[in-house]
Amino acid sequence: MSNTTDLNDKQIQILHVAETLFADKGFDGTSIRTIAKEAKINIAMVSYYFGSKERLLESLILYRTKDLKESIGSLVTDDSPPLEKINKLITIYIHQINANKGIYRILHFEIATKKRDLNLKAFTELRRGNLKTLALIVEEGQKAGVFQKEIAVDLLTPTILGTFFHFHMNKAYFVDLLKLHTDELYENYILTNLTKHIQQTIKALLIYES
Amino acid sequence: MSNTTDLNDKQIQILHVAETLFADKGFDGTSIRTIAKEAKINIAMVSYYFGSKERLLESLILYRTKDLKESIGSLVTDDSPPLEKINKLITIYIHQINANKGIYRILHFEIATKKRDLNLKAFTELRRGNLKTLALIVEEGQKAGVFQKEIAVDLLTPTILGTFFHFHMNKAYFVDLLKLHTDELYENYILTNLTKHIQQTIKALLIYES
Repeated sequence: MSNTTDLNDKQIQILHVAETLFADKGFDGTSIRTIAKEAKINIAMVSYYFGSKERLLESLILYRTKDLKESIGSLVTDDSPPLEKINKLITIYIHQINANKGIYRILHFEIATKKRDLNLKAFTELRRGNLKTLALIVEEGQKAGVFQKEIAVDLLTPTILGTFFHFHMNKAYFVDLLKLHTDELYENYILTNLTKHIQQTIKALLIYES
Repeated sequence: MSNTTDLNDKQIQILHVAETLFADKGFDGTSIRTIAKEAKINIAMVSYYFGSKERLLESLILYRTKDLKESIGSLVTDDSPPLEKINKLITIYIHQINANKGIYRILHFEIATKKRDLNLKAFTELRRGNLKTLALIVEEGQKAGVFQKEIAVDLLTPTILGTFFHFHMNKAYFVDLLKLHTDELYENYILTNLTKHIQQTIKALLIYES
């Protein structure tokens, strides 16, 4: 995957167009030709910039997850108490993913269906990096005697992200159950109640000694 | 949807064949004709039994989730302490879903992509029923003074199921991270470590007063 900090304006424009098309028509339903046409850029240029459609998706994933990497990484040098850092980390995850539902939806379906020739090494490294940050914060809390000793750090992210994704993947069910019948109510619920629930869950798990 | 308790052997045979085909080729990639052929049953008979392919999927969902409904429902009259009931509920969910990954995968993708004319009223009722059981157990624990008072019952299931699904949907990542390189290691991890993590998480949330 190309380094996303090196992307030029044209490349970013292509990624935005591709993202919309992938979200609307799926990865399979979108051709390089359509992307080029919608972006009003010569098809040869699109191929020159990204190579195949798979490589373009890889670049898109890195482009959209770069902010997450930077925000999570900045927590290492943040000097708030450990629990506050965990709360910040959860808020960052939810805001970031909630604001980029398109790419996470694509990621989710394209990765989970596993039929792609995708090299997600850079994305895996990003996840490993985020996990390392989380492990450092947990260790800090344990050393300070604030967190309990038996914490399965590797399983914290599945609980944080899984709760969010399960809620969002079952949107129709929860809209009905919780009477969130406008987009505003739904978005607001995610950023308040759901975020608070995830923070309380992780806090309880980190602090409560069973 | 037809009542799944009324299904005859032929109908059950058709559902099994359809489940395998949906999982292999996707819902769109599978025709009633192929299902009939694989099941060695006249196509007119398949249509007679289920109507459309959408109705067949609805029947399949109910058929595969019937056990879950019964197991969760039986907790209402179980006389273990509330926390033990919650642990049982989590074990039931994970065992049931883990043993029926095929249908949950189909459900997940077909519901989340939302392009289907599916009437999932009976499935929604099942979920509401399970939620009611969970709410009763939580209330029981609160009345007994074992659980804290501020519990968002509606968000417990997203945490229980979301943690499991996020783990499983990112199987390749976790297989690598946790070195679960055989199916046995992976399955065993789900039924021990992951289940325990979810139980500890929910226990901490129910008991810890923040």
